[in-house]
Amino acid sequence: MILTVTLNAALDVTYGVDALRPRTSHRVGTTHRRAGGKGVNVARVLAARGYGATVTGLVGGPTGALLRDDLRTVANLHDELVTVSGTSRQTVTVVSRDDGDATVFNERGPHVAPREWRTFTDRFASLVRDVPVVALCGSLPPGLPSDAYARLVRIAARAGALTVLDTGGPPLLAALDAGPDVVKPNAAELAAATGCEDVVVAARRLRALGARAVVASSGPDGLHALTPDGGWRAAPPERLAGNPTGAGDACVAALAAGLADGRRWPDVLREAVALSAAAVPCPVAGDFDAATRRRIRPAVSVEVLHAPHPH
Amino acid sequence: MILTVTLNAALDVTYGVDALRPRTSHRVGTTHRRAGGKGVNVARVLAARGYGATVTGLVGGPTGALLRDDLRTVANLHDELVTVSGTSRQTVTVVSRDDGDATVFNERGPHVAPREWRTFTDRFASLVRDVPVVALCGSLPPGLPSDAYARLVRIAARAGALTVLDTGGPPLLAALDAGPDVVKPNAAELAAATGCEDVVVAARRLRALGARAVVASSGPDGLHALTPDGGWRAAPPERLAGNPTGAGDACVAALAAGLADGRRWPDVLREAVALSAAAVPCPVAGDFDAATRRRIRPAVSVEVLHAPHPH
Repeated sequence: MILTVTLNAALDVTYGVDALRPRTSHRVGTTHRRAGGKGVNVARVLAARGYGATVTGLVGGPTGALLRDDLRTVANLHDELVTVSGTSRQTVTVVSRDDGDATVFNERGPHVAPREWRTFTDRFASLVRDVPVVALCGSLPPGLPSDAYARLVRIAARAGALTVLDTGGPPLLAALDAGPDVVKPNAAELAAATGCEDVVVAARRLRALGARAVVASSGPDGLHALTPDGGWRAAPPERLAGNPTGAGDACVAALAAGLADGRRWPDVLREAVALSAAAVPCPVAGDFDAATRRRIRPAVSVEVLHAPHPH
Repeated sequence: MILTVTLNAALDVTYGVDALRPRTSHRVGTTHRRAGGKGVNVARVLAARGYGATVTGLVGGPTGALLRDDLRTVANLHDELVTVSGTSRQTVTVVSRDDGDATVFNERGPHVAPREWRTFTDRFASLVRDVPVVALCGSLPPGLPSDAYARLVRIAARAGALTVLDTGGPPLLAALDAGPDVVKPNAAELAAATGCEDVVVAARRLRALGARAVVASSGPDGLHALTPDGGWRAAPPERLAGNPTGAGDACVAALAAGLADGRRWPDVLREAVALSAAAVPCPVAGDFDAATRRRIRPAVSVEVLHAPHPH
């Protein structure tokens, strides 16, 4: 069982339109609603890979109720979300049939009161006792302290659980001090957090600030991993066409599963690249194509990273 | 008390963004949710003008519950909506802060079962007995017969209530045979329904097909009215900048109020033009600016229409 945390869980709404034309009115063809937020997507991927996954985080209001209804339909997935008085956010993704392109609108999320946050940390402390790994994913809703992830990482560490953190901006920087086992920024988040465009140099900075391992994703160029056991670059054998939004969540799922199984880094990274690539052909985050994963996995290149000399 | 019907009631969601950029992800600044659908907007305008308004129509699901919550906050407005098993649609309007322009996404609405439609027509038959005028507004949700408005017009006529119908396409054409007292197409709906670009000629065709009076709106160019008592063109003295989406609903409110009060057509049209114009400065449909209405009303031009000879 792996625990995933989604503090700003969302109801992901997808609208199919013929073409997106700004300043006009659109008749929406197909409408899909499903539970989302990065941690929920990570749990979906884990559940589909046969790992039991427990979802926790914060939900509320009518959108929260719809989100929970949807989670009930997913096998191997256990709902331990904590209810807040605000209303969970909705994301709206408009997909154009003419070019397949997606335009996304992300609401901010409900305001979370201090007592709601305390209720959550108590529940988290209880849940984390029973799991080897916890994945902490996504943005923070309004009202939470910016060091929210730092607190959760410390609680997890005290309970003996390993942590994988996927967030950006101030919540990422504030969490490093707590020593997360793996942080998984994408290249843009890494550059924004460090002010440094060189992935390896930037990743080394995050380790210097407290992260034990850094796995940086660079889209179709694959992953750079700097860990206590060495550095690697892992890349897929080909570029896949599709929707890259779920690739990061699939990567986090592979990292969490690899930590839970106690596998070695090259093996973990091979799976992470294959699972990320297998998410790209799927229209929504949280899904992956099993055949693509099987085809890509043996062809993933993993090379030892000879990092430049520290600045 | 005036009854308004919204068969495809909606939760209108408005997102404020800095600028709409297709194929990118947007952080939504402000989010507003309110009860919508044309009949609901008409009732809001009536209620604000001091007419008691009863809202009926079909609602369901979590969006339906939010919609009803919002209606409770409106003074002079009475909720007689009928619950269906499906989920009410949502509309999403994205407003760009840079230019104020709006881009709209309209969901289709819930599928309505035949027994739900029968339940509604029974309730409608009961409600319409107590009102002098009923306004029937907007699109039909999936599952309803295309002659849904024809049936409601006949039920209203049997109860002695006058009908104002604001819809387009097949539901408009199918309703004419039942003899609605007023139909209010806009210029585009009128042209689509008749295949004729000339407003007066097209309006005469709708009368020939059964409508007792036709009031055609041409945006800032005002209204053309063809009625059993004569024809008129009514126009505002100036063009107003803003959001024209609520002007049609304000016009319907003025027509319904005028019928209820038994006023003469030139007076009704003057009010309809003024109230439509007063809706334009407001960011959301269902609102109007009282000062603009007062300023415009005395300056509305109403001229007798000398229609061309019938074809």
